[in-house]
Amino acid sequence: MAVLLSDHLHYDWKAPHGPDNDRLVFSKGHAAPLLYAMFKAAGAIADEELLTLRKRGSRLEGHPTPGLPWVDVATGSLGQGIPAAVGMALAARLLDLDLRCWVLLGDSEMAEGSVYEAFELAGFYRLSSIIAIVDMNRLGQRGPTMAQWDGEPYAARARAFGWNAQILDGHDREAIHRAYQEAEASSRPTCLVARTRKGAGVSFLEDKEGWHGKALSADEAKRALAELGDPAGDLVVETRRPRQASAPRTPSAGAFTPPRYEVGTKVATREAFGDALRALGAARGDVVVLDGEVSNSTFSERFLKADAARFFEIYIAEQQLVSAAVGMQVLGLRPFAATFAAFFSRAYDQVRMAAISRAHLGLVGSHAGVSIGEDGPSQMALEDLAMMRAVHGSTVLYPSCATTAAELTRQMASRDGITYLRTTREKTPVLYGSEERFAIGGSKVLRQSPRDVAAVLAAGVTLHEALRAHALLEGEGLAVRVVDLYSVKPIDAVTVEACARECGGQLVVVEDHWPQGGLGDAVCEVFAGRPSPPSVARLGVRDMPGSGTPAQLLDAAGISAEHIAAAVRRIGRGGTGPGGG
Amino acid sequence: MAVLLSDHLHYDWKAPHGPDNDRLVFSKGHAAPLLYAMFKAAGAIADEELLTLRKRGSRLEGHPTPGLPWVDVATGSLGQGIPAAVGMALAARLLDLDLRCWVLLGDSEMAEGSVYEAFELAGFYRLSSIIAIVDMNRLGQRGPTMAQWDGEPYAARARAFGWNAQILDGHDREAIHRAYQEAEASSRPTCLVARTRKGAGVSFLEDKEGWHGKALSADEAKRALAELGDPAGDLVVETRRPRQASAPRTPSAGAFTPPRYEVGTKVATREAFGDALRALGAARGDVVVLDGEVSNSTFSERFLKADAARFFEIYIAEQQLVSAAVGMQVLGLRPFAATFAAFFSRAYDQVRMAAISRAHLGLVGSHAGVSIGEDGPSQMALEDLAMMRAVHGSTVLYPSCATTAAELTRQMASRDGITYLRTTREKTPVLYGSEERFAIGGSKVLRQSPRDVAAVLAAGVTLHEALRAHALLEGEGLAVRVVDLYSVKPIDAVTVEACARECGGQLVVVEDHWPQGGLGDAVCEVFAGRPSPPSVARLGVRDMPGSGTPAQLLDAAGISAEHIAAAVRRIGRGGTGPGGG
Repeated sequence: MAVLLSDHLHYDWKAPHGPDNDRLVFSKGHAAPLLYAMFKAAGAIADEELLTLRKRGSRLEGHPTPGLPWVDVATGSLGQGIPAAVGMALAARLLDLDLRCWVLLGDSEMAEGSVYEAFELAGFYRLSSIIAIVDMNRLGQRGPTMAQWDGEPYAARARAFGWNAQILDGHDREAIHRAYQEAEASSRPTCLVARTRKGAGVSFLEDKEGWHGKALSADEAKRALAELGDPAGDLVVETRRPRQASAPRTPSAGAFTPPRYEVGTKVATREAFGDALRALGAARGDVVVLDGEVSNSTFSERFLKADAARFFEIYIAEQQLVSAAVGMQVLGLRPFAATFAAFFSRAYDQVRMAAISRAHLGLVGSHAGVSIGEDGPSQMALEDLAMMRAVHGSTVLYPSCATTAAELTRQMASRDGITYLRTTREKTPVLYGSEERFAIGGSKVLRQSPRDVAAVLAAGVTLHEALRAHALLEGEGLAVRVVDLYSVKPIDAVTVEACARECGGQLVVVEDHWPQGGLGDAVCEVFAGRPSPPSVARLGVRDMPGSGTPAQLLDAAGISAEHIAAAVRRIGRGGTGPGGG
Repeated sequence: MAVLLSDHLHYDWKAPHGPDNDRLVFSKGHAAPLLYAMFKAAGAIADEELLTLRKRGSRLEGHPTPGLPWVDVATGSLGQGIPAAVGMALAARLLDLDLRCWVLLGDSEMAEGSVYEAFELAGFYRLSSIIAIVDMNRLGQRGPTMAQWDGEPYAARARAFGWNAQILDGHDREAIHRAYQEAEASSRPTCLVARTRKGAGVSFLEDKEGWHGKALSADEAKRALAELGDPAGDLVVETRRPRQASAPRTPSAGAFTPPRYEVGTKVATREAFGDALRALGAARGDVVVLDGEVSNSTFSERFLKADAARFFEIYIAEQQLVSAAVGMQVLGLRPFAATFAAFFSRAYDQVRMAAISRAHLGLVGSHAGVSIGEDGPSQMALEDLAMMRAVHGSTVLYPSCATTAAELTRQMASRDGITYLRTTREKTPVLYGSEERFAIGGSKVLRQSPRDVAAVLAAGVTLHEALRAHALLEGEGLAVRVVDLYSVKPIDAVTVEACARECGGQLVVVEDHWPQGGLGDAVCEVFAGRPSPPSVARLGVRDMPGSGTPAQLLDAAGISAEHIAAAVRRIGRGGTGPGGG
């Protein structure tokens, strides 16, 4: 890191978000003290701040976060820095930026599969701007690593994924300097396996177990500094300037021409997402799309066909899919990453960390719920709403019709934080004309009367079942309100409360999702701390589904129109709704 | 697969759960029709059942699940079959079973990082019983794979991870036969990269895009069969018998000696988990423990020190950690997998699929919530309850004291399904004596009076804050009930309802978790469909935490005793509790 900081990193510390800066990612986030020492040496932070390490209110947290302007992405969950760098390198290529992405990895971290997703994609796309340095110090948190000081396995893996690789002495500055020079000139990504001794130069620390994450006592610190020859406390390093002057890149701006769908025709929301994505691409030069090798299922292929340069095929590597999106937004792009909703569960840690990275990006999951039909439970997202609601600052959207899906897609591109759109495999009737407006945090009351015995709150495929239930009940003289809760988080608390007030305190929530963490929980959260909350009956998927037609599976799960109507009838007759499970 | 079925698979179709059977895993679960055709050829299923493929109620789902007795683990989320096989191979070695684990992988699937976690562990542990066959047909769902028909990258990667690897013609039966013979005799795991043509032998299918997951029309099927020379419909294959006769293995049974903790002393629940795990190991020979290279943090090292043979170091590869546990329970073992609770988010897809696999296993996550202190948000589990509640059939436990943690650990070993235990980093006072009993689905009322103005429902670290709040309020003459909701799912609905009834319909839920999907939502679920539910005030973590001491962070998050007391005072004064966020 000393060689990097003094001779190879091109960086303007005064303008950390400048697009021409090299990127520096500590994939081994627990080496934060080293990173902060570099910031200090570069003059970015002062001594007093350095001494706030890990204290309440300090920007110098236990692991790096973008609370510090020189940190692009939060790390600390291992194996996530290098995949983020893949996103940065892809963005740099698109934006024609002459920068390098330097990534420090731990050797324990090389056990994470996400590292190899990154190696694979970087190799395939020849992302020569990536220079990974593996700190092969032999010792993990609780003992030796698998390969210990044998660098060959790491180098062989990197080469097998199409990288240059070199094993070197991580304490030999001249060798490091030469290796960096070669890496900077290479046409492939480079992996430098640096053999190091943890705690080098201090007799009681060097290559010793039991020191991971431990601080020295004052006395030990004194002894250690003496052994190191009492290095000067005020080391100041001048960093090289960025390779090319930053010119502000203003993304091309055009008009967003919303796709239009005729009310009553049947269009899948996933298809409308694809249409809107294409329209967004024409309107905004900063929008990029990432695919988990299912673009013909998510309909992101509509964007690909219109603008292949801003479409990134990440193949079936969902962790890399999300991390690449996180990396791309660091350079000012606005990524949409799409795959089957169920498979975002593969990248939940990456989504969680994206929120800690203060990333702004859109995730779009198709094939939600049992309504996908025959493919069976492995392909059905039944926990995605739970997962995405429990992400800090997230937005969770679940449109019921093509018009809504298209408009929400447009809004996602300007929304802060992690925004998740859940789309449906099956075609569903278009409910709204193109003049309809959809606010995030809003809802639509589709059926209402002064005599409503209950309000059915639904979203996505179950809204159409709710509308069918309304029709069934109407024939029986039973009036029920039907609300489209397309915005799951934030939820339209005003409308939900009005429903409770005006419909006899009787709500029925229907969702194509497990009963936990989804729409039912979101509705109950509205009434947190409120006196006299309404009765909330919940229809959700309680048994493990199998294969079948969408209609069969909706009915078997108890979330079809017939089940909704039955729940409302129980209320209408003065009974209670179905209980929890 | 034909060569495997007729000449290499040792399998008793009448006793699919027999421990000496070879295991056959379709990691590319979408090849289910091929698997079912093999079952048919082996005589395990009849023609009539084969024709129920993907129909409602059929065991022949779109992707394989253990609804079929010859399927060990559900697949269909790619890259999960081979890591499960690692678990099977580890179990086979422990149990001294002479079997092979045959795994069919897709080439698109080779993009998943989880595949390389499996390659890495299998290579490191020299799991020679694993024979992986990569169906290199060049075509993914929406187009060509990265490597297309170049087998070298796959072979080079396998070798770099310590495997034997061979590239062969996947249509050359003789070559396949020889390769299987070599693989069966090898002292390393073997990867056979089989060059195949998708739809081979049918002119309009062979190596053509656009046929992924599509069925032929009746006419197309006729043409295809004609081109293939109208193969006999009643192909019957005799499979080889298992290599050694099955002898029922009864795990050694001893007495469980529960660890004892003195009430009032301070012990971390993670430490009690470690103690109980060691005691379980002595009592039950089927218990095995898997570690994500943090055994000194989760305290699973207590088991390691007592019985190293049944302790498996999976290193920092959380996906493999969960998948190995799934694989091990196939062979009758009872696995506990432990890492930081936050890092189970890395394996959420594996946990989801484990439920579809009908797996029985324990997951134990330490370092829950902001109460871990200085390490910062990347290490804090704040969504694990949401994640684990939304797993089908799951049990979610969150003990507040060492006695509870130890006893729940014992019960986890006999519980069906996915059982999750959340433990705390900090030491907390022991609340219960060793005579106390803890039912899953139960709770403990720790403070109550006839004058309670509200009930505070808490678990883990917040229970101790609730008890402190009780003491604060007592001094002010305000009585409040305090309940230990150590069983988050299933929750003690009877007690929660009694609290609502007896405490003025006023509940206060406090959790070291985001407000979504955790204890607050679990409490509200109790009242689903019930008339006149109580008012539920919720205290949870709403802002992104940083570093700080545990006490500072609990207070900053608004979940400390002072905040709980303030919430109760508002209720006591007739106001309302805090709202949702």
